[in-house]
Amino acid sequence: MRKFAITPTRSENYPEWYQQVVREADLAENSEVRGCMVIKPWGYAIWEQMQKRLDAMFKATGHQNAYFPLFIPLRYLEQEAEHAEGFAKECAVVTHSRLQATEEGKLVPTSPLEEPLIVRPTSETIIGASFARWVHSYRDLPILINQWANVVRWEMRTRLFLRTSEFLWQEGHTVHETAEEAQAEAQRMIEVYRDFAEKDMAMPVLCGEKTAAERFAGAVQTLCIEAMMQDGKALQAGTSHFLGQNFARASNIRFIDRNNQEQFAWTASWGVSTRLIGGLIMTHSDDDGLVLPPRLAAYHVVILPIIHHEADAETVITYCRELEQRMIERTYAGEAIRVFVDTKDRNGGEKKWSWIKKGVPLILEVGPRDLKNRSVYGLRRYTMESFSMPLEEFWEKLPTELQSIQEGLLERARTFRDAQTRAIHTLSEFEDLWATAQGGFVVTHLCEDCAIEAQMKERYNITIRCVLPDTDETSSCFYSQQSTARRVVWAKSY
Amino acid sequence: MRKFAITPTRSENYPEWYQQVVREADLAENSEVRGCMVIKPWGYAIWEQMQKRLDAMFKATGHQNAYFPLFIPLRYLEQEAEHAEGFAKECAVVTHSRLQATEEGKLVPTSPLEEPLIVRPTSETIIGASFARWVHSYRDLPILINQWANVVRWEMRTRLFLRTSEFLWQEGHTVHETAEEAQAEAQRMIEVYRDFAEKDMAMPVLCGEKTAAERFAGAVQTLCIEAMMQDGKALQAGTSHFLGQNFARASNIRFIDRNNQEQFAWTASWGVSTRLIGGLIMTHSDDDGLVLPPRLAAYHVVILPIIHHEADAETVITYCRELEQRMIERTYAGEAIRVFVDTKDRNGGEKKWSWIKKGVPLILEVGPRDLKNRSVYGLRRYTMESFSMPLEEFWEKLPTELQSIQEGLLERARTFRDAQTRAIHTLSEFEDLWATAQGGFVVTHLCEDCAIEAQMKERYNITIRCVLPDTDETSSCFYSQQSTARRVVWAKSY
Repeated sequence: MRKFAITPTRSENYPEWYQQVVREADLAENSEVRGCMVIKPWGYAIWEQMQKRLDAMFKATGHQNAYFPLFIPLRYLEQEAEHAEGFAKECAVVTHSRLQATEEGKLVPTSPLEEPLIVRPTSETIIGASFARWVHSYRDLPILINQWANVVRWEMRTRLFLRTSEFLWQEGHTVHETAEEAQAEAQRMIEVYRDFAEKDMAMPVLCGEKTAAERFAGAVQTLCIEAMMQDGKALQAGTSHFLGQNFARASNIRFIDRNNQEQFAWTASWGVSTRLIGGLIMTHSDDDGLVLPPRLAAYHVVILPIIHHEADAETVITYCRELEQRMIERTYAGEAIRVFVDTKDRNGGEKKWSWIKKGVPLILEVGPRDLKNRSVYGLRRYTMESFSMPLEEFWEKLPTELQSIQEGLLERARTFRDAQTRAIHTLSEFEDLWATAQGGFVVTHLCEDCAIEAQMKERYNITIRCVLPDTDETSSCFYSQQSTARRVVWAKSY
Repeated sequence: MRKFAITPTRSENYPEWYQQVVREADLAENSEVRGCMVIKPWGYAIWEQMQKRLDAMFKATGHQNAYFPLFIPLRYLEQEAEHAEGFAKECAVVTHSRLQATEEGKLVPTSPLEEPLIVRPTSETIIGASFARWVHSYRDLPILINQWANVVRWEMRTRLFLRTSEFLWQEGHTVHETAEEAQAEAQRMIEVYRDFAEKDMAMPVLCGEKTAAERFAGAVQTLCIEAMMQDGKALQAGTSHFLGQNFARASNIRFIDRNNQEQFAWTASWGVSTRLIGGLIMTHSDDDGLVLPPRLAAYHVVILPIIHHEADAETVITYCRELEQRMIERTYAGEAIRVFVDTKDRNGGEKKWSWIKKGVPLILEVGPRDLKNRSVYGLRRYTMESFSMPLEEFWEKLPTELQSIQEGLLERARTFRDAQTRAIHTLSEFEDLWATAQGGFVVTHLCEDCAIEAQMKERYNITIRCVLPDTDETSSCFYSQQSTARRVVWAKSY
């Protein structure tokens, strides 16, 4: 068996494999600030691609971007008790506005603030304060806002991208005239996330509703998309909340309705974060490193000039530049093909492996022979298959080749997930399974009255990832054996 | 004289006019968090256009985006004394990581941090810590990084966009092998800013170097672009710093050079912020509100359907949609023309004035007659001239019309600035002028030895905005009458 580029492999030590993929692909690193990461250029480039796609989807659904303060006064939090409780345990509190140097040159905080501020862990309350100023009449509604921002939640155990004290995200915040409209918004946006996850990330997701235990602090209903990582654990990849009138009451967002009555508005919020990058890595990467789906790759193609004799250098590089130019003029997924010619002075093998580890979908090696034969020799990263074909055939196939990689990744991930998903009908089957299972999704019928989630979490470290949308079929609850249409998905999770 | 849309007008009360333009164009508002603003959708759209243009320019000059922590440990700041002193007076200090509810439901900070953190006022020190890990050999250089981020400087007197405690910006940070390369980088990027200011913002700027008194805390050299606002005051619109080895020493960024010697690296940094939006407003806007240059306008064209009889509604709106579709297919400045059809149910005059106040370059009113006559009736916002022409002529002229508005704005601003710029040769002339002048640029020769800046600031509230690049010509210093080639620009400033 050949040696792999990542040590350890997934089967040897999955968590450590993840850290090494992040490191070898040069995506991010830990900083000396507890729990805060540095997103390096190759990692940030993925976020930029994600932002571009998502931003276009948000705008296409009528949302506008805006920006609200980083700091939240404590009294805003105090207005929504459940929300405050949910975030009070893990927030960065600003208490002073100045530093003073001691005689030894140490800096110490001075000038205490009258009211401490917290760094936003999420912005419902601070954005709500603006909404209260903006909304007067039903004619002002709906308000459909999105914000790209950093947020801070003081996490105890952190992991690059998956759980960091500071992370980047987008948070949508909307205000509506009726409960139905706010609910429809929450539903519409979880569908946008599902589309993005499947179409752009090639990451299949289940879409459902969180149980009360897993709901966003202060929400009436939390919808989510849940993906399965290659260790069989679930990753919550995006959430969308119907907030009822809870935050409108807390922030005093009132309006005059069509009957000339004053009432509280209905709000929704929804977000995805740099955690998606962690999900992307753990969905597609293999024991040779990162694997990027073409739609989110900073480069679709990397061209490596292969020069054994210095005399060939100019001809080969010129030819590579011609290929580059010709590629830029082609499009994939509505954009110019992104290509990079790596002319850095390094040995060929090292260079090639660095791009393999960085997950570029297509890696071409171009030497004097390829030039002479008008042929292309390349590597399809996700299958690690080499291919060779006439140049003209390659040109013809390039966009469909990228799309077939994109679809192949989704298909592969879906096959993996489906193989790791089991339907279970009895408690004993369920207990037998979780006594040994390390991962996988378990789907059961479970009636609303069976409050066994806390107990199962305690016993097997599993949670209900989501309640699936109702179907017409009923079956018996695996716990109570009562008939119910309610199906839930159980898993260990990140 | 007709009534203007903004009260007061510029000549009546310039600072209040500015606030009213921001308000009437719906660009931003103050929040309840001291000194922090809310950037509303129409204001944020300008920032998005700016980001798009600047980001492309940074990438074209070889820079990559990345992201670094929001928080800076105090010990990082302590390593560069001048830098620490410069920012210690105005920083948000995080001291606790948790809130606890009192019996009355109040939240109070708890869990003090071992080491307090400050919210970044700028990121030289935190990014330097990463650079120290990334740089080993001259082969790793140059490192050319940019970050889009929020920063916090606890300002006492704030003004929307121009000076806020939190603001959005980009900060470039680069590491080089030699002093010359780092200096060249600082110079290259101030030229990028100048290009952007003039080409995209239509805002003429002077480019020069700051004196020691106005230099960035810790820099060896600070280059700047300075614009003139309509009250004759200067606005520092962007800076680029050559940092020597100061920050490399503080952050311990060392590398093995070509002679196999270990040495400290040379660094540069450069930034522009949402302050540019303030500059844009004060450069072009008039007594009817905001005026946007086409290259940064969220909409190049707004189409207002004019419907006097309900029977015409469908025909007119369908026709407007056709115009919209045809416009989207045209390009200006390399992008699809951005057009919006305002079908909102408001009276025509109110609607039209709302878009005038929002500064859209071209506002078209389309009624049944225009449809019948195949003609276009519109308003060129920056001159407030109405025009009427055959539809086919309008189609032909549209992109050049937008470009002529873009150039017309630059020309108008340049003419204004030049008329408010005086060369002065003697001290008495200088003192006479500043005894009464409210604004304007004053250019003088001033030899390096004349340390009169503090005294002039004290007396007239003016500063040296920049030292202009040397020319071959020498003249006598207005203060000492010694011969010198050094020319400086004096002004009151924001």
